[in-house]
Amino acid sequence: MTKRDKPLILITNDDGIQAKGINKLIEAVRELGELVVVAPDSHRSGMSSAITALTPLRANLVKKEENLTVYACTGTPVDCIKLGLNELLDNRRPDLIISGINHGSNAAVCVIYSGTIGAALEGCIAGIPSLGVSLTNHSPEADFTQAAELGRIIAERVLEEGLPKGVCLNLNVPDVQKVRGLKVCTQTKGYWTKEYMPAKDAVGKTVYWLTGEFFNEEPYNKQSDEWALSQGYAALVPLQVDMTAYEFMKSIPNWEIIS
Amino acid sequence: MTKRDKPLILITNDDGIQAKGINKLIEAVRELGELVVVAPDSHRSGMSSAITALTPLRANLVKKEENLTVYACTGTPVDCIKLGLNELLDNRRPDLIISGINHGSNAAVCVIYSGTIGAALEGCIAGIPSLGVSLTNHSPEADFTQAAELGRIIAERVLEEGLPKGVCLNLNVPDVQKVRGLKVCTQTKGYWTKEYMPAKDAVGKTVYWLTGEFFNEEPYNKQSDEWALSQGYAALVPLQVDMTAYEFMKSIPNWEIIS
Repeated sequence: MTKRDKPLILITNDDGIQAKGINKLIEAVRELGELVVVAPDSHRSGMSSAITALTPLRANLVKKEENLTVYACTGTPVDCIKLGLNELLDNRRPDLIISGINHGSNAAVCVIYSGTIGAALEGCIAGIPSLGVSLTNHSPEADFTQAAELGRIIAERVLEEGLPKGVCLNLNVPDVQKVRGLKVCTQTKGYWTKEYMPAKDAVGKTVYWLTGEFFNEEPYNKQSDEWALSQGYAALVPLQVDMTAYEFMKSIPNWEIIS
Repeated sequence: MTKRDKPLILITNDDGIQAKGINKLIEAVRELGELVVVAPDSHRSGMSSAITALTPLRANLVKKEENLTVYACTGTPVDCIKLGLNELLDNRRPDLIISGINHGSNAAVCVIYSGTIGAALEGCIAGIPSLGVSLTNHSPEADFTQAAELGRIIAERVLEEGLPKGVCLNLNVPDVQKVRGLKVCTQTKGYWTKEYMPAKDAVGKTVYWLTGEFFNEEPYNKQSDEWALSQGYAALVPLQVDMTAYEFMKSIPNWEIIS
């Protein structure tokens, strides 16, 4: 591979190409390198690391300017990253992948459900330094100024220093007037409760709408991302793709059965 | 909560309620307790931990026998677990969740994309001992005898001993004439390559079908699940929901920025 003058940055999100969040991200990092955006053609929230196996994908070129190419893809956020890396980048390997800026928090256990984080993990699996960025405000018209600025700062740092293999970053920025700073945090332990609102359809059959309340199992853990956000700090959680529970492994070798 | 005579077991999969794998699982664990099955009404492979947020869910009762209730759900595997826990079990808490038996391997990095494993992780998030079971054969008519037997053995062990909070189990069984035994393993490091087959649609536009080859980054790691499977062993990998990269955290406190 020949040395490039400008870093190549692949961008996606899960709110779709029209969302304010991704467009503010593009603006914020535009000067850092050549950008290729492959984003879902509409809303794909809660898609986790889902992949499209049964139907084929399409990618439509929507913009081509100097150092900015934008595709709208019919797939999930992970599909967008895979299609970018395998097909749309003409065998060029990005120096950085950024996913976001998500409309809404991806702190705590949301990393498991989030399409934004799914895309960052996908970059990480491919061995490319990857970053997810989210703002704790779901509004389509949220103010992304601080999240975009912090995203750019972290992006520059990652371009300079890289990330260890198998590790990506999850940046959540609180929706406050003035962010107090950035803290490196752990993924808060917790879960969602009261997750459905039952309702009736037009012929009286029961349907269930997803809703819910987050229950924080460690509200006083000052290292957790939810704590940092609650105090007005942006929270940076390094995530790893290897989900092996090494601690527990030590206690179950006696589970082995030899026929 | 009053003590029940029989354990309550919640079952799902990602191949859909009609698949041979889930029906063989139901047969195999039928005697272990009361079973409630909430499974997708059709194929939901590769759904990871995706959740359905924009459309409402439905659950149709398809069978009610003594100790066996079966619902077909319009959602993803994780939706099935959430709907079971929140609505369909009438506030009863299962003693065990089993997801599978999947038609096809969920070893190595497949844990990230798998709906089968998404469902097991969901049980784990809810604090319920959870197990995913997969057979390394995609065929609709695969022979699930050994996978069902091993699944039952592990299910009994988990019912007796429980699992630590935040940890679930991923059991993969090789499609061999005689499984050599069970090994407790780590999630193999690797990634998929050559992931798309471009094709043309009826009007000549390019579409991309998902395909690919798995590249094993540690083919000689005898602790990895891919190694165990290649040697004819079933592989049991304990997985954790907390994805924080604790090792890397130690090296980035200096990334903190205080405004």
